[in-house]
Amino acid sequence: MTPARGQIDFRDVVIIGAGFAGLEVAKALGRAGIGVTVIDRRNHHLFQPLLYQVATAALSATDVAVPIRKILRRHHSVRVILGEVTGIDTEARRLLLGCGQVIGYRHLVLASGASHGYFGRDEWAEWAPGLKTIEDARHIRSQLLLTFERAERATDPAARQRLMRIAVVGGGPTGVEMAGAIAELSRHTLLHDFRSIDPGSASVTLIEAGPRLLAGFDEDMSAYAKARLERLGVTILTGARVEEIGPGSISLAGQTHPVGVVVWAAGVAASPLGAQLGPTDRAGRIAVDETLTVRGQPQVHALGDVALFTNAEGKPLPGLAQVAKQQGIHLGRALAAHLTHGTPLPAFRYKSRGNTAIVGRHAAIFEQGRFRLRGWPAWMSWAIIHVYLLVGFQNRFLVSMRWLWRYLTYERGARLIAGDVSDAADKMPPDPPGLRAARTGDRSIG
Amino acid sequence: MTPARGQIDFRDVVIIGAGFAGLEVAKALGRAGIGVTVIDRRNHHLFQPLLYQVATAALSATDVAVPIRKILRRHHSVRVILGEVTGIDTEARRLLLGCGQVIGYRHLVLASGASHGYFGRDEWAEWAPGLKTIEDARHIRSQLLLTFERAERATDPAARQRLMRIAVVGGGPTGVEMAGAIAELSRHTLLHDFRSIDPGSASVTLIEAGPRLLAGFDEDMSAYAKARLERLGVTILTGARVEEIGPGSISLAGQTHPVGVVVWAAGVAASPLGAQLGPTDRAGRIAVDETLTVRGQPQVHALGDVALFTNAEGKPLPGLAQVAKQQGIHLGRALAAHLTHGTPLPAFRYKSRGNTAIVGRHAAIFEQGRFRLRGWPAWMSWAIIHVYLLVGFQNRFLVSMRWLWRYLTYERGARLIAGDVSDAADKMPPDPPGLRAARTGDRSIG
Repeated sequence: MTPARGQIDFRDVVIIGAGFAGLEVAKALGRAGIGVTVIDRRNHHLFQPLLYQVATAALSATDVAVPIRKILRRHHSVRVILGEVTGIDTEARRLLLGCGQVIGYRHLVLASGASHGYFGRDEWAEWAPGLKTIEDARHIRSQLLLTFERAERATDPAARQRLMRIAVVGGGPTGVEMAGAIAELSRHTLLHDFRSIDPGSASVTLIEAGPRLLAGFDEDMSAYAKARLERLGVTILTGARVEEIGPGSISLAGQTHPVGVVVWAAGVAASPLGAQLGPTDRAGRIAVDETLTVRGQPQVHALGDVALFTNAEGKPLPGLAQVAKQQGIHLGRALAAHLTHGTPLPAFRYKSRGNTAIVGRHAAIFEQGRFRLRGWPAWMSWAIIHVYLLVGFQNRFLVSMRWLWRYLTYERGARLIAGDVSDAADKMPPDPPGLRAARTGDRSIG
Repeated sequence: MTPARGQIDFRDVVIIGAGFAGLEVAKALGRAGIGVTVIDRRNHHLFQPLLYQVATAALSATDVAVPIRKILRRHHSVRVILGEVTGIDTEARRLLLGCGQVIGYRHLVLASGASHGYFGRDEWAEWAPGLKTIEDARHIRSQLLLTFERAERATDPAARQRLMRIAVVGGGPTGVEMAGAIAELSRHTLLHDFRSIDPGSASVTLIEAGPRLLAGFDEDMSAYAKARLERLGVTILTGARVEEIGPGSISLAGQTHPVGVVVWAAGVAASPLGAQLGPTDRAGRIAVDETLTVRGQPQVHALGDVALFTNAEGKPLPGLAQVAKQQGIHLGRALAAHLTHGTPLPAFRYKSRGNTAIVGRHAAIFEQGRFRLRGWPAWMSWAIIHVYLLVGFQNRFLVSMRWLWRYLTYERGARLIAGDVSDAADKMPPDPPGLRAARTGDRSIG
């Protein structure tokens, strides 16, 4: 309860989404004492850049997720509503929530982000989970750990071999980070934990449709990443387009390969709310002008992954945390000045702070303009920057400790399979027909 | 993969369950190089005594759960199988797993523990979750945090008031710990996080059917716990039997009360596997003799919460972690000597190391025989002992740091609502009929 509550109208600015973009807008407006409602369908802000470490058992979910209320606690003019926005009525200036409630607004800021997309093949989601939420990360972690559990229990050598094949689809930063971390998990962390299988012999394949990994980086950096991953035992397939994904199988170039787990790190699709504001591009993004305002709707703004912002060179900005954060800081300050003094909204300019990606154990690449860094120094910079950017002292401290511990021991402290494990293990997809025929009738493992 | 694998027969001793009891048996036999198979339906050993801290957002799930494989890694004669035992064939000496596989054994150790029981009213489980697994703890945590989220969003004062009523059923150590931690959560941690509600005004009620709290402790200690909890704002009802639990309501002594969340900390029911070995007592426990052997089945042993062990005074031992652990250490050593040298199994004797319970913020009670300790010194001893008993240096260190942080700031770092939150919030039980009539037609919260 806030003493000053009476004077505040929380409907002045309504922000959908508390990711990097939405949070920065809320904080800037809160500092100016302007009434804000933040709506999110989660109660936590997620530090997406480290989510792959939750999926590979290095960090705990609570290390990378912070309650939105806690972050905005001191801003008394900001309220937080947990709910899913299902409709936007731009005529009447109000939002419909999934629970049936209605929220009016004067200014709307759409920062609802993006999810993974399957290029129209949504049925693949069941067999190839993507990595966007805490639940996604826990699910992938469970799938990775379970496939080794099932292999240990398997009686048929072909089934065992299939279970120990892991494919990562998509050679962007997330795919590269996942492939490296999975290789480390199997080659080091799990090495001595099994009796019937050798986790170190698991096959990890990274599949990229384009001609090289990390297309957003310089060619030298791509080559370095490829070499590092190969040294970790990752097989890299470039120019390889996925044609089909089913239970226990993946098809490339007309050939179907048995597989234990597929991780999806390829497509991105913007939140469907963008389409409620106007026409969107192929990725579902709503176009905004240089002030981050939706064309023809001066009271409506969009930013971050849901927005299509074209820079001076006519190129759309990439879906990066730093883009979202810079846009959020810019729009928050601009709106505060506009609502307080009537100042017109200034144009946004993106300043790249450099691109980075982790390539296996304690190696990274970093590039900004013509400056390049790679290997251990790049990893160290990455680690320091990412710990610094985490919200809250407690998370920074605990994550540093976990990393230090892992650095010294190769141990991953968060090897927790979620849900009822035996159920999950028993209900895993059966072997594909070709393999099933090869199975022996005897299922005794005694 | 183990070099010596050829000589080991993992079927020599099969242990069902990797709780405190099962793990100690496995470690003792592993030290003696005897072949062991450990079967559990989870991949992790759970430190149950701290589970209530996960349910109340103080600790992360990974802080209290350690992979079973990691604990037993160095014991090369021990293998771990993830699976659910669904049948025991004591004639043929083999187990059936849920996945259809069969595992033979020479000696069987049943250590499958207990779950919460609803005294024959299993339908209450939906509205009053109990606390036995990581998923249970995450579920309760979500329910507790969600009820405040829904209250903040509610438009109807009666609904809001109902949502902020939390009931804990069962005045044993778990119930007392939960009630104290929930009161602390609402009175301190969440205090400044909301705009429409005052979390500090939430009502927390602890309901006990017996005449006093903590019946296993001395009366003085019960009175102290009651006073401490009342000072935290917990309402304590003793001699109060729950008659009905439904969506948003709980009935006591013929009266139905509206309620936001009910936490179940009352009944305990042993694992159903005990009944496959012979007749069980009312709590589902299988009787064992003084050597922890099932009567008439010299190759079959049971211990921990699934076993009914009657001491020299004719009293059954309570379902405590220290009982399970002592029994595990005893049986492990006894079986190792028996299988190596043919030594007959010696009788087990329980030595109580004292009983303890946490009563709210930084206060505890401890008693051993005539020795009594309470308040801050008891809490300090509790904290040191529990950190010491956690498995793994990393967990000990991280849990200490979280506690220190919480001690200094009242902050709870693990306020993560699991699952799709908005869905969960939208699908929460509707208001009970009596309340629904009082609702206004206008659901606008703008």
